[in-house]
Amino acid sequence: MNTASTLYQKHKATIDAALVALSTRGYYTPYPESPKAYAEDGDLKGKAYISAVMNNNFNELLQGEAESWVGEEISPFLQLGIGVKYPNVSINTYVTKAHDAQKNWANTDIYTRAGILVEALQRISNRFFDITYATMHTTGQAYMMSFQASGPHSNDRALEAVITGFKEITSIATETDWIKPMGKFDLKLKKNWKAIGKGIGLVIGCSTFPVWNTVPALFANLITGNASIIKPHPKAILPIAIVVAEIQKVLAEQNVNPCVVQLAADTPDAPITKQLAEHAAIKLVDYTGNSEFGNYIESLNKTVFTEKAGVNSIILDSVSDAKAVFGNIAFSACLYSGQMCTAPQNIFVPENGIKTADGVLSYDEVVSGICASITALVDNPKAGAGTLGAIQSEITLNRLKNVNTLGGEVVLASKTIVNEEFKDARIATPAVIRISENEYNSFNKECFGPIVFVIKTASTANSIALAQKLAEEKGAITCGAYTTDEQTMHTIEQAMNSVFTPVSFNFTGAAFINSHAAFSDFHVTGGNAAGNASLTTTEFIVKRFVWVGNRFA
Amino acid sequence: MNTASTLYQKHKATIDAALVALSTRGYYTPYPESPKAYAEDGDLKGKAYISAVMNNNFNELLQGEAESWVGEEISPFLQLGIGVKYPNVSINTYVTKAHDAQKNWANTDIYTRAGILVEALQRISNRFFDITYATMHTTGQAYMMSFQASGPHSNDRALEAVITGFKEITSIATETDWIKPMGKFDLKLKKNWKAIGKGIGLVIGCSTFPVWNTVPALFANLITGNASIIKPHPKAILPIAIVVAEIQKVLAEQNVNPCVVQLAADTPDAPITKQLAEHAAIKLVDYTGNSEFGNYIESLNKTVFTEKAGVNSIILDSVSDAKAVFGNIAFSACLYSGQMCTAPQNIFVPENGIKTADGVLSYDEVVSGICASITALVDNPKAGAGTLGAIQSEITLNRLKNVNTLGGEVVLASKTIVNEEFKDARIATPAVIRISENEYNSFNKECFGPIVFVIKTASTANSIALAQKLAEEKGAITCGAYTTDEQTMHTIEQAMNSVFTPVSFNFTGAAFINSHAAFSDFHVTGGNAAGNASLTTTEFIVKRFVWVGNRFA
Repeated sequence: MNTASTLYQKHKATIDAALVALSTRGYYTPYPESPKAYAEDGDLKGKAYISAVMNNNFNELLQGEAESWVGEEISPFLQLGIGVKYPNVSINTYVTKAHDAQKNWANTDIYTRAGILVEALQRISNRFFDITYATMHTTGQAYMMSFQASGPHSNDRALEAVITGFKEITSIATETDWIKPMGKFDLKLKKNWKAIGKGIGLVIGCSTFPVWNTVPALFANLITGNASIIKPHPKAILPIAIVVAEIQKVLAEQNVNPCVVQLAADTPDAPITKQLAEHAAIKLVDYTGNSEFGNYIESLNKTVFTEKAGVNSIILDSVSDAKAVFGNIAFSACLYSGQMCTAPQNIFVPENGIKTADGVLSYDEVVSGICASITALVDNPKAGAGTLGAIQSEITLNRLKNVNTLGGEVVLASKTIVNEEFKDARIATPAVIRISENEYNSFNKECFGPIVFVIKTASTANSIALAQKLAEEKGAITCGAYTTDEQTMHTIEQAMNSVFTPVSFNFTGAAFINSHAAFSDFHVTGGNAAGNASLTTTEFIVKRFVWVGNRFA
Repeated sequence: MNTASTLYQKHKATIDAALVALSTRGYYTPYPESPKAYAEDGDLKGKAYISAVMNNNFNELLQGEAESWVGEEISPFLQLGIGVKYPNVSINTYVTKAHDAQKNWANTDIYTRAGILVEALQRISNRFFDITYATMHTTGQAYMMSFQASGPHSNDRALEAVITGFKEITSIATETDWIKPMGKFDLKLKKNWKAIGKGIGLVIGCSTFPVWNTVPALFANLITGNASIIKPHPKAILPIAIVVAEIQKVLAEQNVNPCVVQLAADTPDAPITKQLAEHAAIKLVDYTGNSEFGNYIESLNKTVFTEKAGVNSIILDSVSDAKAVFGNIAFSACLYSGQMCTAPQNIFVPENGIKTADGVLSYDEVVSGICASITALVDNPKAGAGTLGAIQSEITLNRLKNVNTLGGEVVLASKTIVNEEFKDARIATPAVIRISENEYNSFNKECFGPIVFVIKTASTANSIALAQKLAEEKGAITCGAYTTDEQTMHTIEQAMNSVFTPVSFNFTGAAFINSHAAFSDFHVTGGNAAGNASLTTTEFIVKRFVWVGNRFA
């Protein structure tokens, strides 16, 4: 046990506090979410960084000579290629380097590993502004979301994975004297226990949250002793490339083979994901993305962790302040143009309307209330552009263009608004569709992007049954519910929890169902079709290594 | 949180001590392994019990009316049917009852559940002698092994599962006030977290260790809130039937639906295992048995835990006291006639022999030394019958009859010996085969039962490489190694651990590679072909439930 590891000692206070937070699950972060908490010149330097790196080779990686340089990212704000190229080598070279690095990494003790990883997170936090601009110009997230989601919130999730692994691996003795009384004598054995990583991990990133959805798996792999290859989405490489580079630098400083983590970039026309995923030496695969590819990943005979599509519901039963509720829902639907896996899609409203402190609001009034709130938000020059960001992919935009074919009646059309900073930004505001519960086949699938169905049901009981059925059949990552009735609240909680879906009740103001905070909220439960893994349960960690014990007479 | 649960309070000292033992992994058990530690008249009552139950219906279960009565167990000691019949209902009835009971059980809190389960273990300990005779007359285990393996050692493993689950589920807050500073105000949410069982569990038992290999999964299911159906091997029902009955009695006393656990017995001619395993309502399957059926179980799209076949090796390099080593190996090979999943099969010896304190022993001398030790043990009238027990299955006996066809040269033939108490017992002593490492295809599979290969290799390096290759390709549950050289010890440890196989070094005297102690040794690592699960890692527990959190504004 090498608790004297310098970096472990340096970060011991953080590690100890995080260990407590893991259990108590109150608010916790060592990485403040406000840009103001960081270097005053950070933003300026970040702007300079993105200008400098565009149309250049990304040369910060320490993973050896490139065989070629690839990169086809496009900025949704500029609608131009950003021109950054990343080093590329053959599949076998990635795997061989990972294999060699794995041996080195496996021999570091858990304290050394934790120290290195928390140090890496600190270095990454020095690059938050660079990562922010890289995130904006790949995902289309607006500035503040880019900063928070790819910066502090990602670091929180990464730290959570490190600490969950640290807790588990330090949970049993590394060695002991086992003494069994046998009556006339004692049987004595020396024993040791080792947590041995399963092998090389592949982490497959997504286009919308290239850091947030990658680092939990990456840091989970690393703390459990597994070298990792990061295969980002070909349209969102730069943000995670910076993260990989910072980890590699810390590894190199500590005389550890930096190929413990490698970036494996590709392009849409020459994808390498399946070749990597199917390689015999890859033992762990983490994936975030569409369900079809996720199901393929799950069918591999490997240890796999997936986050796939889901259909998130909001159940409207009764509220005290309708305006506050509509405003909250509007923000959740508009935030990053509904391109969050936690965005609400289906809003269930009883045909007899909802009770409010000011009397009953009819279904029609609810529909128009939601539409009005969305319109007010997107048309607000101080808030619209910064909330919506830009549309990441053409596919999402095309879905919006065909919104009339989805069923129901489009009562609020999607439109574009002006982003003063980025005149060419690809922007689309949410479309709202009013529809009957009978048209189940219209709203029973994920329509990724800014599309909201307001579904008229016979009763709140029907709303609950539909939300439950959808979560069971199609998966759900989150569920919002508004009710002032305690029994109804209990019924909703039981129904949705039974299909392994968490519920957020009566959110208004600054609480949004989209947000899942590290060290408190689990993200995806792993219990329904939205994915088989959960950030960050013990299971997310312990499936990555094997306990082996030896005995010595 | 209902820490005031009466049974939890009653057993709190045990639970607390077991929680510590889980981490420290020194010797621990609340259930002494000597029969003398239990009721003086226990053995007499056990004998009376087995006499009374034979040729009768097993009527202790509290799972409702039988549709029919089935049972075809045969005593390997008497070579006669024991005539016990068990209640049988349709697959749908089992599942419906489990489903109803699950709802009830899921609503008990973790403290209540732990209290009930530890109380059940105490009740089971009052039946150890009954279970001993039931185990003898189904598995062929000799008296002392039946007592220890199906009694205290099983209870240890069951308790270990309960405590691992208790630790995990109590590891995070059940609710908290989450307060996030937002600058001008605090965002406050109330949150709760629930560990929700995945659904009904099926536990498929084996013929040789009907209790030991069933209760870890059963108690793991129960502590994590999952109703369970026990499908024992049709030839080894009675021991686990008693266990199920005792649990049901405690459940009923506590006003919990006793169908939280049900026994589903069948016969070899009308098996129900696949129907149960494939039923949509069964979410968890635990299985111990042959690899072919285990692979089928693993192919089900469910959460499955398997212990399959493996090939266990002993690597002989150098020893101080050869006679003590041969005696130890002989005992490991003879114990329960090699019908343990931890029995050694392949003994690797370099062609130049092994160093001892008295000079080098040639390969031939090692072979004859092992044979002599086996012969001395089986021919010892005070030890032979009690060590060997009886052969559980005709298949094992037939394998021995064809031992000449396995390859190599049979240098010690299997024979029968007299068991004074059971003249008709089905007994077979170990056969020893000398063979060259070149005949890999002869020894590269599990030959279940008392068959030992002593394999001549070019060097210890070859011995290690072969043991490693076998563990990787065919799986291994344990490995014994004898060396007086520190570097060789390190090499063996690294090589075998890299294929997720634990090593026991230089065992002599009362330490045997066959034994894996709860609260200390993991049983099966889950990392190689011998099975995908490990008793009792955190993974064995956490895959059985899903964390779901709710948030309240």
